Amino acid sequence: MAEQIEQLDQTIQLLSDLLQSGQDHEFIDSFEALHDFEMAQVYAELPVQFRAVAWRLLSIAILATVFDNLAVDEVDIVALLQEMPPQRGAQVLQAMYTDNAVDLLQEMSPRQIATYLSLMPKSEAESARQLINYDDQTAGSLMSTEYLAVKEDLRVDDVMRLVKKQALEAESISYVYVLDRQGLLVGVISLRDLLTHPDNLPVSEITNDRIISVSAGDDQEQVAQIVADYNFLSIPVTDDDQHLLGVITVDDIVDVIDEEAVEDYSGLAAVNVSQINDSPWHSAIKRIPWLIALLLLGMATATVIGSFDELVKQAAILAAFISLITGTAGNAGTQSLALAVRRIAVGSEHSGWQDFLSEVLAGLLVGLATGASVFVIVTIWKHNLILGFAVGIAMMMAILVANLAGYLIPLIIHKIGFDPAVASGPFITTLSDLTSVLIYFNVAQLFISQLSGS
Amino acid sequence: MAEQIEQLDQTIQLLSDLLQSGQDHEFIDSFEALHDFEMAQVYAELPVQFRAVAWRLLSIAILATVFDNLAVDEVDIVALLQEMPPQRGAQVLQAMYTDNAVDLLQEMSPRQIATYLSLMPKSEAESARQLINYDDQTAGSLMSTEYLAVKEDLRVDDVMRLVKKQALEAESISYVYVLDRQGLLVGVISLRDLLTHPDNLPVSEITNDRIISVSAGDDQEQVAQIVADYNFLSIPVTDDDQHLLGVITVDDIVDVIDEEAVEDYSGLAAVNVSQINDSPWHSAIKRIPWLIALLLLGMATATVIGSFDELVKQAAILAAFISLITGTAGNAGTQSLALAVRRIAVGSEHSGWQDFLSEVLAGLLVGLATGASVFVIVTIWKHNLILGFAVGIAMMMAILVANLAGYLIPLIIHKIGFDPAVASGPFITTLSDLTSVLIYFNVAQLFISQLSGS
Repeated sequence: MAEQIEQLDQTIQLLSDLLQSGQDHEFIDSFEALHDFEMAQVYAELPVQFRAVAWRLLSIAILATVFDNLAVDEVDIVALLQEMPPQRGAQVLQAMYTDNAVDLLQEMSPRQIATYLSLMPKSEAESARQLINYDDQTAGSLMSTEYLAVKEDLRVDDVMRLVKKQALEAESISYVYVLDRQGLLVGVISLRDLLTHPDNLPVSEITNDRIISVSAGDDQEQVAQIVADYNFLSIPVTDDDQHLLGVITVDDIVDVIDEEAVEDYSGLAAVNVSQINDSPWHSAIKRIPWLIALLLLGMATATVIGSFDELVKQAAILAAFISLITGTAGNAGTQSLALAVRRIAVGSEHSGWQDFLSEVLAGLLVGLATGASVFVIVTIWKHNLILGFAVGIAMMMAILVANLAGYLIPLIIHKIGFDPAVASGPFITTLSDLTSVLIYFNVAQLFISQLSGS
Repeated sequence: MAEQIEQLDQTIQLLSDLLQSGQDHEFIDSFEALHDFEMAQVYAELPVQFRAVAWRLLSIAILATVFDNLAVDEVDIVALLQEMPPQRGAQVLQAMYTDNAVDLLQEMSPRQIATYLSLMPKSEAESARQLINYDDQTAGSLMSTEYLAVKEDLRVDDVMRLVKKQALEAESISYVYVLDRQGLLVGVISLRDLLTHPDNLPVSEITNDRIISVSAGDDQEQVAQIVADYNFLSIPVTDDDQHLLGVITVDDIVDVIDEEAVEDYSGLAAVNVSQINDSPWHSAIKRIPWLIALLLLGMATATVIGSFDELVKQAAILAAFISLITGTAGNAGTQSLALAVRRIAVGSEHSGWQDFLSEVLAGLLVGLATGASVFVIVTIWKHNLILGFAVGIAMMMAILVANLAGYLIPLIIHKIGFDPAVASGPFITTLSDLTSVLIYFNVAQLFISQLSGS
């Protein structure tokens, strides 16, 4: 990878030099020889004065490829588009795949959107306007309308002719969708089958009518799961009547899987890990609110411990096990949370009650094993059976409660319609600190007559 | 999704009924009409007595598709293969895509592998034997050798003829690889370009010689990153001399991204989240060792606190803030850990020293903000400026140390050659408990004369 980044820097230098010395044709040739992804990288990193020349030299089709391959969350893509006159920007938008054009439009202010749409042909603008309305993270927001579609009653060579004609516009050419007279999706033909069957065969013979499609409102994570399971290269999006609305290609699915993984991981750690190149200042600014919020919850724990100060004065040894109990229960709760979030994401094989009972039982087993260990260790170490027993029992109960919290909280968040990943590990551990000390000191209170003076 | 699972159950019932009533041809037709993924699901879930009939009825090609689409970590794929006589099993292995066949072989004992390979043609057995040797999680373990390759000096129609001939065997038909006389990879042609250019054009005109390839030993995560960036549908694997060894297709990349995400997520939580359907007993058995190991580390923290029991006796209020400080530092350390693991995975834009300084600075800022907050809160709440100051300073230092630990530990683990994801969140928080109480009680010691009696 490192050498590829270096290579990219060299390419940028080379292309800048060509523009600097007025070798415009050589610039165009070298630029067009790049891979699509590289074109985007290079274009975004060209010095601004050279970019002003570049967009004048490059064709609309090439510029569309550049903007198709820019990641909206990594560069200020709107600013890049606005370096061109609105007229040309609108042409680029029009030449882009609809899903990417819509992603770009969604980064703009309503006023900017209106400007660009007014410069596009009416039908294209209308279709873009519709796509903008799909919620982020749904199938609708991922689909593009550049797909290959044919009527039912054709032969292989007819379809191949159409494929060849439309191949340049389509985002994926792996599948051809078959529509009936009403425009309803009735089947799918793979390009592989088209290539390996005789020209005069009716395509109905190689049409797969066992269609797997998704709805525009479906969650992107579910769509990704289907594409991953079926090893599809694209999947059709239909409305309730089976009208074909668009297709989602596997490259977008790859991005979705990555995005969802980053989201879940960030949630577990209470920090957005997609922003690893932030300045220390920005990084700190983003981390602090979470920490302060958790600090306030932690103050409740401090209050609880503070309210037991008489107990601590009588048996100062009790203080020694606070962090052991809160820490271990927090760890158990984090495990349980991660399993619960994952179970919600990929779907469980069991019913909700089975999962719940299973989690209670696992919590009990984990609590028993850990409680028993700590009982043995503390009893031997402090030569104090009562202390060992109190700490062991408290540990067991604290783990059971933390496990249940780790299991139930993401489930509840999911039920009320939010992403369970927002229930972060730090939140669960901080909450479990509170329940753990409550349990610990109440248990200790029961044994205080035997413990005091320890 | 739920309806699709239900549909699958119905399909299994239907197909079982067909076999039960002796309608063998109807069974074959219905089975072959399924999607590849569904064939695999259905086959694995058919009652064993029907499967014994099914493998006799189905063609080797269909059985190969079934086994190509079974996930080795979800079903006992070796047992399924062994339901057939070794001879037929070897034929199925041979008809499978090499990457999947090798995955299957890798699940077997050396003795079983030897049996199956001895039943395969010598050249195929030899090639499988070589592929088995690639380490798991490398490009070599993902590649298959069923790719489309042609010589340089052909025309579009020549290549299309070859593509049509080889299309059924190739795992991906999106790209055709161009080899020179020595068999070295010199370029790539996309099927899209083949379809949209005139028949008599020399393919050299549409060959992209800016090859992006990976080495067989490359880490799968890096390969996935390249494919995701470039939006490729497959990527060639070459040796140091640019000999083409195989190709990796995007469906395998989708699985890699998912697998790596699960690994990182599991690491952060210290629990394997890929096993969400374990029984409570198995789930507990897997969680307990981690918890006990962390418990032992936690005992060190308890020992430290215990050694300060005179201090606690003099100022019991100190106990109240133990969990606040350990908890907040643990949360900060978890954030820092997650950022560090992610930075290692996707590569940082900065040098190691820049990242280090950046993290120290971010830690200082986070520590200052949090320390200052806790100083204000404790001072007002307890009407005790000294206590607020002691807790605030300790908090700041504890956070700084936890941040650095969260940053450095995965880095060190990575440098010595392990996956940084093994540095779990619970490990960092438990370790940070220890450093936090050390800092806290040593700071408190300095102020004890003003604090005692609190």
